[in-house]
Amino acid sequence: MSESKKKYREISELGEFGLIDHITKDVKLHHSSTIKGIGDDAAVIDYESTCAVITSDLLVEGIHFNLMYAPLKHLGYKAVVVNISDVYAMNATPKQIVVSIAISKKFTVEHVEEIYEGIKLACENYQVDLIGGDTSSSLTGLAISITAIGEAKKDDLVYRSTAKKNDIVCVTGNLGSAYMGLQLLEREKELFNNDPNFKPSLDGYDYILQRQLKPEARKEVIEFFKSSGIKPTAMIDISDGLSSEIIHICNKSEVGCKIFQDKIPIDENTAKMANEFNMEPLIAALNGGEDYELLFTIDINDLEKVKNHELIHPIGHIAEKENGAVLITSAGQSMQLQAQGWNQMKKEE
Amino acid sequence: MSESKKKYREISELGEFGLIDHITKDVKLHHSSTIKGIGDDAAVIDYESTCAVITSDLLVEGIHFNLMYAPLKHLGYKAVVVNISDVYAMNATPKQIVVSIAISKKFTVEHVEEIYEGIKLACENYQVDLIGGDTSSSLTGLAISITAIGEAKKDDLVYRSTAKKNDIVCVTGNLGSAYMGLQLLEREKELFNNDPNFKPSLDGYDYILQRQLKPEARKEVIEFFKSSGIKPTAMIDISDGLSSEIIHICNKSEVGCKIFQDKIPIDENTAKMANEFNMEPLIAALNGGEDYELLFTIDINDLEKVKNHELIHPIGHIAEKENGAVLITSAGQSMQLQAQGWNQMKKEE
Repeated sequence: MSESKKKYREISELGEFGLIDHITKDVKLHHSSTIKGIGDDAAVIDYESTCAVITSDLLVEGIHFNLMYAPLKHLGYKAVVVNISDVYAMNATPKQIVVSIAISKKFTVEHVEEIYEGIKLACENYQVDLIGGDTSSSLTGLAISITAIGEAKKDDLVYRSTAKKNDIVCVTGNLGSAYMGLQLLEREKELFNNDPNFKPSLDGYDYILQRQLKPEARKEVIEFFKSSGIKPTAMIDISDGLSSEIIHICNKSEVGCKIFQDKIPIDENTAKMANEFNMEPLIAALNGGEDYELLFTIDINDLEKVKNHELIHPIGHIAEKENGAVLITSAGQSMQLQAQGWNQMKKEE
Repeated sequence: MSESKKKYREISELGEFGLIDHITKDVKLHHSSTIKGIGDDAAVIDYESTCAVITSDLLVEGIHFNLMYAPLKHLGYKAVVVNISDVYAMNATPKQIVVSIAISKKFTVEHVEEIYEGIKLACENYQVDLIGGDTSSSLTGLAISITAIGEAKKDDLVYRSTAKKNDIVCVTGNLGSAYMGLQLLEREKELFNNDPNFKPSLDGYDYILQRQLKPEARKEVIEFFKSSGIKPTAMIDISDGLSSEIIHICNKSEVGCKIFQDKIPIDENTAKMANEFNMEPLIAALNGGEDYELLFTIDINDLEKVKNHELIHPIGHIAEKENGAVLITSAGQSMQLQAQGWNQMKKEE
């Protein structure tokens, strides 16, 4: 449509989110049953009695995982968990998954068995049915694409776009640990690459390693919402770091927020590892990603109900849109949060 | 569990179907709403008012397509069509798709736009909503994983496992053309690789090229079934060649069949190309694959209703299990059909 000559743009100019926005901005929907398309943790299809919640994630060798340190069984487990975490982030219950994998000739039947052991274990732990998929060769490496299908009543669904001023912002568990686990694995890999006799020392780091290699989704929190009659006003899962996710909620809900550094939960193992790396633990929490915790907002009247739950931490509140997404540091300084999340397409790697 | 030392098996020992069977044989289902899991064209989830039909296909560069001759727009189109063809093969109507793509650095924004142009065109032509997905980097090449979601009333669903003795076996359209299109493209590619000044001569081969590069799914046949009150007794789409697919129906339904060579529809362009290659057109029809026609069985009492439909060709009938899947040649000889379909994992490439 442009009158100038056709220009070619590197994908890195747009980044992952920019590319998705660009490609999907003119997508038209044909069916009234498609009540939510692109733009949330999952899409929603209305089947009258129930809504189906659909989400898909693709994990690619060398981009999302490194087989030098990611055991195949853990990888299969994680591939399921990252998807059902998106279903929980809609306040829905994951019920089924479809798994497609592409594998190169370096993989044997036993390797595929290991991946599926992890997939099946996650299916068991989260009570999810493996109902289909595709298996293909690839010229190089391994890719796992999983689509998860969940269920919810229409009125129970929670979107990113419905946070309101004065709502309380909460996160579950703790943040930054998966990122510090990754830093540790990367460091030991480098040392090993430089000296094949080097023995990686991973003892005592179990917690952050587990968070990176075999994360869990926050099933118990969604169950708690149900049993306590709480419906968050907005929710998202934390795959790209707190900053990136709270900005998604603010942008989609057309609000701002105020988050307090002192309230952000960081595990002592995460802090210890960050110190070893001479890194601010806060940075891991804000930008690290892959925590698969839930970030949600609740009406201020529900604060009483959640404040004694050991996994739920109020970290701030929703504010005027004009002030943007703001972090109040321990020193009382106010700074704008930025989405520096884990964006493989934009980062210079 | 074995007492012997752990052995490693090449995936080629099992092939794609063998691998899938092996990996999924112990899959347990937890939900009564999962009324069909692995083992048909698509899985089925019961939402009471409606059933959702879910299927997924993964296309990998260098395995399923070659960018030397597959235009990106066609590739996007085809990636959608192969999925919704599986939905039609359940006698369901495709409604939504989720698209995940992995792309290496050689691709620009404009390349991704071209892929999505094809995806969106298919969505328009088949009235399907693009509702989500994932976009990722890859170290090498392009992979497209699509999950399609369709709808049907439970009683309208048609499985592979319900063909009965004396049912009439029918196929739609014609067979082997997509395979001959591929042979032509491969020949021209070789000639071009040997002599970069060589100009591929593809004129006059439009039909078979279109069948390979931009196939269509048989929407009109499913609509005809609805409008004429026909419910096939079993159905599958032809992605791996007639032999492989009829054997799937026979195995799942625990029956045999008798197919007549003279009845198998082969387009004149397919026959002409096969002759140029000194190849038996029948072999392309039986083992070629990628036709995305429908193979189905109907009760003999429904034969009257379909026999004047220009796209529907009765080619034989369901028989006793004991005799297996049999082809009666033009010369009156009887031969066992074999699943030599397009099995990239088993073939020596």
